[in-house]
Amino acid sequence: MKLYERLAQDLSSLIRSGALAPGDRVPSVREISRERHVSVATVLHAYELLLEQGYIETRPRSGYYVAGAWREALRRAHALPQITRPAMRSTRIDVSELIFEVLESLSDRAVVPFGSAFPSPLLFPLKKLAASLSHSARGMDPWATLDDLPAGTEELRRQIARRYLRAGAYVSPDEIIITNGALEALNLSLQALTRPGDLVAIESPAFYGCLQAVEALGLKAIEIPTHPAAGIDLASLATVLTRHPVKACWLMTTFQNPLGASMSDAARQDLVRLLDKHDVPLIEDDVYAELYFQRRPKSTKEFDRRGMVLNCGSFSKSLAPGYRIGWVAAGRFAQRVARRKMMSSLSASIPAQRALALYLRQGGYDRHLAAVRRALAAQKTALISALHAHLPPEARLTQPEGGYFLWVELPRPVVAIDLHRAALEHGFSVAPGPIFSARRQYENCLRLNYGHAWSAQAERAVRSLSALIRTARGSHSAAASSTSG
Amino acid sequence: MKLYERLAQDLSSLIRSGALAPGDRVPSVREISRERHVSVATVLHAYELLLEQGYIETRPRSGYYVAGAWREALRRAHALPQITRPAMRSTRIDVSELIFEVLESLSDRAVVPFGSAFPSPLLFPLKKLAASLSHSARGMDPWATLDDLPAGTEELRRQIARRYLRAGAYVSPDEIIITNGALEALNLSLQALTRPGDLVAIESPAFYGCLQAVEALGLKAIEIPTHPAAGIDLASLATVLTRHPVKACWLMTTFQNPLGASMSDAARQDLVRLLDKHDVPLIEDDVYAELYFQRRPKSTKEFDRRGMVLNCGSFSKSLAPGYRIGWVAAGRFAQRVARRKMMSSLSASIPAQRALALYLRQGGYDRHLAAVRRALAAQKTALISALHAHLPPEARLTQPEGGYFLWVELPRPVVAIDLHRAALEHGFSVAPGPIFSARRQYENCLRLNYGHAWSAQAERAVRSLSALIRTARGSHSAAASSTSG
Repeated sequence: MKLYERLAQDLSSLIRSGALAPGDRVPSVREISRERHVSVATVLHAYELLLEQGYIETRPRSGYYVAGAWREALRRAHALPQITRPAMRSTRIDVSELIFEVLESLSDRAVVPFGSAFPSPLLFPLKKLAASLSHSARGMDPWATLDDLPAGTEELRRQIARRYLRAGAYVSPDEIIITNGALEALNLSLQALTRPGDLVAIESPAFYGCLQAVEALGLKAIEIPTHPAAGIDLASLATVLTRHPVKACWLMTTFQNPLGASMSDAARQDLVRLLDKHDVPLIEDDVYAELYFQRRPKSTKEFDRRGMVLNCGSFSKSLAPGYRIGWVAAGRFAQRVARRKMMSSLSASIPAQRALALYLRQGGYDRHLAAVRRALAAQKTALISALHAHLPPEARLTQPEGGYFLWVELPRPVVAIDLHRAALEHGFSVAPGPIFSARRQYENCLRLNYGHAWSAQAERAVRSLSALIRTARGSHSAAASSTSG
Repeated sequence: MKLYERLAQDLSSLIRSGALAPGDRVPSVREISRERHVSVATVLHAYELLLEQGYIETRPRSGYYVAGAWREALRRAHALPQITRPAMRSTRIDVSELIFEVLESLSDRAVVPFGSAFPSPLLFPLKKLAASLSHSARGMDPWATLDDLPAGTEELRRQIARRYLRAGAYVSPDEIIITNGALEALNLSLQALTRPGDLVAIESPAFYGCLQAVEALGLKAIEIPTHPAAGIDLASLATVLTRHPVKACWLMTTFQNPLGASMSDAARQDLVRLLDKHDVPLIEDDVYAELYFQRRPKSTKEFDRRGMVLNCGSFSKSLAPGYRIGWVAAGRFAQRVARRKMMSSLSASIPAQRALALYLRQGGYDRHLAAVRRALAAQKTALISALHAHLPPEARLTQPEGGYFLWVELPRPVVAIDLHRAALEHGFSVAPGPIFSARRQYENCLRLNYGHAWSAQAERAVRSLSALIRTARGSHSAAASSTSG
């Protein structure tokens, strides 16, 4: 890193930290030159960079000031990725090996977990949950261990139904099946609706758990173009439904993993209508529904009049990580899914279910959620600011309104798998794009997690990432020129 | 029921209850006649029946006495079923609908649960477990919710490895994957070893969960003759392995469900050798291993030198029903199974795993198990005595040395499915034979559960069962004679 770059970085860090607020005067060129023992030319060079990045502005005959709208300026600096253009041909999937390699490398606590699939466990009220666990287990009727099989504890199903009502959807407790996390709910739903060889429509990029489920069941997937902010492209989906015998759709309409995209209310309604027209059920991975920053998204279930939406939720991301309690509101497919559940794992842990039912009944969930939302929103801002500061300007990134993932599209040539491996050597992780694609596309993309507290290490990790990207691009240019030479 | 039968039954109930002990003098014919207001002929008739059944014996010039060996006499009264003779052709399975119908009818707490798959939840130390849950959840490191994924809590895996050592087998904690009950362990193992269309060798009769798993994965099964006391017939299995491309064997070598059969140590060794020769892995459903009455059976893992046995266990039947904690010691297939787990439900409930680890570390499990074994052994004796007393003498039944199921083969013609339906109307349940067979065989057989405390209702249920059997056979005879007439 050159001297002027280091200087610009130090100043932008001060600004992002709030130590220099919008409107504050930035030290004069002369002051800096004297104190840091650098030439005036170097300082001028650094200030030019900061002006360009939007951190500072000049006032005639007065000098440099922190820009009032530096955040917005940064946002403009990195555009949103464009809508994806997957092949839209049905594909047998074979990505599990790659996915496992990546996932298994992410378990080291010491690395900065930009590649992690999980939010920080410190966000959750584990002590209060322990008290609920303790209280409900002590008072548990032994016969509950049989009565609650296999659909789950009645009180918990009632509490879940109430939360749907708040999101605008009427869901009967009878159509809710409690599962071992949403992942089991999704797998059971897919099993209940398909047979080997069937075709499933999915987003592109898609959650790798979806790709693995499709692969494990011997299904074929067809990837639909997906807008990084607005979600699946309904026109493309309509075309596919007309031309292909799609048996089910598996989507994340809210804070999609990995993009962070969220469908508008109108788009949800259109989606349900479109699927209804083709009589195709929707398996909806809805685990981030409670993690909105501003406005609660509507539930797709609100528009579902025929019980065709299987909405899969979980407490793992919003309340109780490790308890492994999820559910599916399976509509007309409830009995089919319950039977699959009975065959595959019988039931989710009864004490864990009862503890969550008690916690929900006692209240406090909304207060907890408000705090989690605030924390995630702040962490998103911190990560995005750091990315704006350090990534090359051609990079594009999403700015989700909830959840804890964003998606970065890097200027080619960059090989995300190589970045993932190099990152681990530098003490941080990233989730490389190809694990989110049936055809291993998105090789220049990364999913980054902002579910953990922001820290000096995180800031350093973003700098390292940028350095790795520069190196990758530089070495490519070098390789290219040496080849051509 | 005729007067002399009623009288004989009352006396045999007294004997079985222990109110009249072996060697005790039975009231004289004259006394009974006077007190019950019945003719001397009736009493003599009743005593003849009791003599025949082996409850009493005569001593010259002294009268009637309770037989010293009435239990053994009764045992002789009902022979062991013969070795089963399934078709031994590969079969696509389609029994789930029937199984679900039966299982869904068994959830009513009010019926005497002879048909249940579960032991009484009152057998288990749920209060002590609640204390462990409470203690371990309060002290839980939040990061454990991530560290313990997906293979499971390390301390629990260590504790399980120790118990294998006591059963004579060395199992490394590293090959143990904690699952949502043994049912998930079995399903994951089967998924890890097979692809749709593959052939699996199973016992006949077999646990219906096995039939369902085979059906759900689109596999074919080949049923092997199984001896009601000694387990799978190795000669038949050897023939099948030579002739068919069997991809895996799924067996219960210990207290098989539904027969109660248990393989000898020597047979286990031969089984492992045979499978090794054909390079076929063994998925072993071993959930009743701890529920022996006299002698701890050896673990098949003891003979497994190549890591080819996937031994699936659970705490659901021996310690913690409803906690849904099971495991598989998967040998050389451990990574493959762990990956399946990661894809299907990620992990079992962490607080439940930690609670069991703490309970096991603190000791007391063996004391608890000793009490459960005593209870189950006593309940077995009570059920078998009642069956001996009431079932037609041509009935055959197994007398397991552990677990909580026995198998009854009734004289034909009897339709077990009809008995199951009629039983529910009379306030008890039975598990009909056909749910344990890929070809719906065993239509004259029942699995009965003695996992619940013996009671006057249970005794009445056995009488009702016998009455239903008599009616079924009588109506058949009547139908037969009216047809022939």
